[in-house]
Amino acid sequence: MKNIVILGSTGSIGTQALDIIRRNKAYFKVSALTAYNNIELLKDQIEEFRPEKVGVVDAEKAEILKKTIPQDIEVLTGHAALKDLASQPGIDMVLVAVVGIAGLEATLAALESGNYVALANKETLVTGGQLVIDAATRTGSRIIPVDSEHSAIFQCLQGADRQDVSKIILTASGGPFRGLKRDRLENVRPEDALNHPNWSMGKKVTIDSATLMNKGLEIIEAKWLFDLSIDQIQVIVHPQSIIHSMVEFKDGSVLAQLGMPDMRIPILYAFSYPRRMKSPVQAVDFTRIGRLTFEEPDMESFPCLTLAIRAAKIGGTMPVVLNAANEIAVERFINGDIKFMDIPDIVEKAMDTHQVIPRPSLADILQVDKETRELLS
Amino acid sequence: MKNIVILGSTGSIGTQALDIIRRNKAYFKVSALTAYNNIELLKDQIEEFRPEKVGVVDAEKAEILKKTIPQDIEVLTGHAALKDLASQPGIDMVLVAVVGIAGLEATLAALESGNYVALANKETLVTGGQLVIDAATRTGSRIIPVDSEHSAIFQCLQGADRQDVSKIILTASGGPFRGLKRDRLENVRPEDALNHPNWSMGKKVTIDSATLMNKGLEIIEAKWLFDLSIDQIQVIVHPQSIIHSMVEFKDGSVLAQLGMPDMRIPILYAFSYPRRMKSPVQAVDFTRIGRLTFEEPDMESFPCLTLAIRAAKIGGTMPVVLNAANEIAVERFINGDIKFMDIPDIVEKAMDTHQVIPRPSLADILQVDKETRELLS
Repeated sequence: MKNIVILGSTGSIGTQALDIIRRNKAYFKVSALTAYNNIELLKDQIEEFRPEKVGVVDAEKAEILKKTIPQDIEVLTGHAALKDLASQPGIDMVLVAVVGIAGLEATLAALESGNYVALANKETLVTGGQLVIDAATRTGSRIIPVDSEHSAIFQCLQGADRQDVSKIILTASGGPFRGLKRDRLENVRPEDALNHPNWSMGKKVTIDSATLMNKGLEIIEAKWLFDLSIDQIQVIVHPQSIIHSMVEFKDGSVLAQLGMPDMRIPILYAFSYPRRMKSPVQAVDFTRIGRLTFEEPDMESFPCLTLAIRAAKIGGTMPVVLNAANEIAVERFINGDIKFMDIPDIVEKAMDTHQVIPRPSLADILQVDKETRELLS
Repeated sequence: MKNIVILGSTGSIGTQALDIIRRNKAYFKVSALTAYNNIELLKDQIEEFRPEKVGVVDAEKAEILKKTIPQDIEVLTGHAALKDLASQPGIDMVLVAVVGIAGLEATLAALESGNYVALANKETLVTGGQLVIDAATRTGSRIIPVDSEHSAIFQCLQGADRQDVSKIILTASGGPFRGLKRDRLENVRPEDALNHPNWSMGKKVTIDSATLMNKGLEIIEAKWLFDLSIDQIQVIVHPQSIIHSMVEFKDGSVLAQLGMPDMRIPILYAFSYPRRMKSPVQAVDFTRIGRLTFEEPDMESFPCLTLAIRAAKIGGTMPVVLNAANEIAVERFINGDIKFMDIPDIVEKAMDTHQVIPRPSLADILQVDKETRELLS
């Protein structure tokens, strides 16, 4: 029986993780759940999974929730709730599925206390990669990636020697605008961008997938997770999203992980690691799918990818700026305030004016994140 | 430095193995080489690689060779030479690349003496799978497959737990006659069959690839190598031969090994295992290849696949009959004595009249092999 803490249980990854646990109650137990402010769904989850503790970031909502759930369930509030629940003793796995830079602090807290982390929060490694890797190394705790691409790479590297890796190939679906050129992209609307062909995800991630910023952020994450140089990370567009990513070894051999596009596979893998368990996801029917195709990414029309690579190579706090500026720009695009092609422009301008701090502390990262957001809001 | 014995050094796999060794002389040393009767090429190989011992199966040719090479190189003759050289002490790897059932005896000799075997001989596991696995288990020696498909599966299983495997998927190029129906296949000629689209191989293997018997034999080999039931082995046609085979796990995740179709990758992997080394084979350029396609195999037009599955399920000496009858039929087809579609007919008739010995000894296997050949010649 593994004791699991889910930070961000009411989001897309959180609810899918609970679906996995629901089907495997003999193997997994929910120790704690947290939500930002969706206490209606959290209440249902509490009733079903009976965690010992819950966290609600929004203090007012936490007070409302308290009155509707059994008194023996402890309710923590504020951002500190995430850190406290992540660093509890007796936990086998902390799924960090919150959105935003709060994930970095929670991940660091989990790793510092020696807890294993199933990482589904993008900001963690993008903004604080060095701190996170240092913490994991220091305590001997591990990060199991939950992103489909990084889980694929992680799976391909089991039993392999890292010295034998020549590069990794991150696959990208290409998003809803694959094949469109700049002039056509000028006038796409949020509702077009939110219509992803393969994956069902949150709004922010879906827009990032349309700009290819998502893939850029994944490059930065992969660099830290697998100790690679940026030049060892290639992106190819694979519209069917069946090959989730690949590792090329120095003998010219490539290992790939494939599966139907369903996040429950990488979530279950993180929970069951190093073993595997039966999942509710159907197997890939190759002859029915018929073919898998590959294209070069269009760096010209999707400049966010180039910006992310540039930020990754500069390092320090530059990826923090990339991430914060992108988040604000995406929010403004969803609200209809700016056009699609303004997203990379906003990110680029923020990067151009930033004074990089080479080896930032957590305080530096949070400060740069805050300043970037304030500057753009 | 690994000491390597190559049985069958003048054949297709043997010469490619020597190419690998030529490029990595700091890591691999040739201890012994053997040939059936091609002493001209063997002499060149002796000059270049300076083995301590050589074997020539043909005794007359052995005598001729002796006069042309340095006297300190010991020359063994007859089939016993293979067994003797395979079971020498101080050997790190025996590459069994001879053609025919002689490979079984040599493999058993190597495994019994505790030597590791890089297995490129199809007959070994097809005819004597149980004996081979028993010998390896008893002595703790290992078999590293050199077939591209089995090497792919072997690579995908590194770091995995066998209990987590749901099935394996062997890919087949489909050979030169992919898409042709029975009536068109009636009149294909040996020269058509010898024109394989992707792989450069020996004649016998190339015809087996055209009838899909090759894939049938690989099913039987995979059953023994990976301890699977026949129902856990699926064949799909993948004309580009880039995905060399795949493993499906019970969580719905699939691992695949890919590479350019070049036997030097699996040969080098067997030699360098568990590590990898730089190979002369170019990496896969996915965007240049553009697409990978998949089809169901046409069991109707290529009945050899069905026959092999039937023989595998019956077990005992039935695969021995399948293999021997097929070899004779292929030989007769190459000589122009029979038509292409007579190959499965001959195999089926031989199987229909065979009285199966359930758990055959080596003597039983050799006897059934001999009898089947005599009956058909």
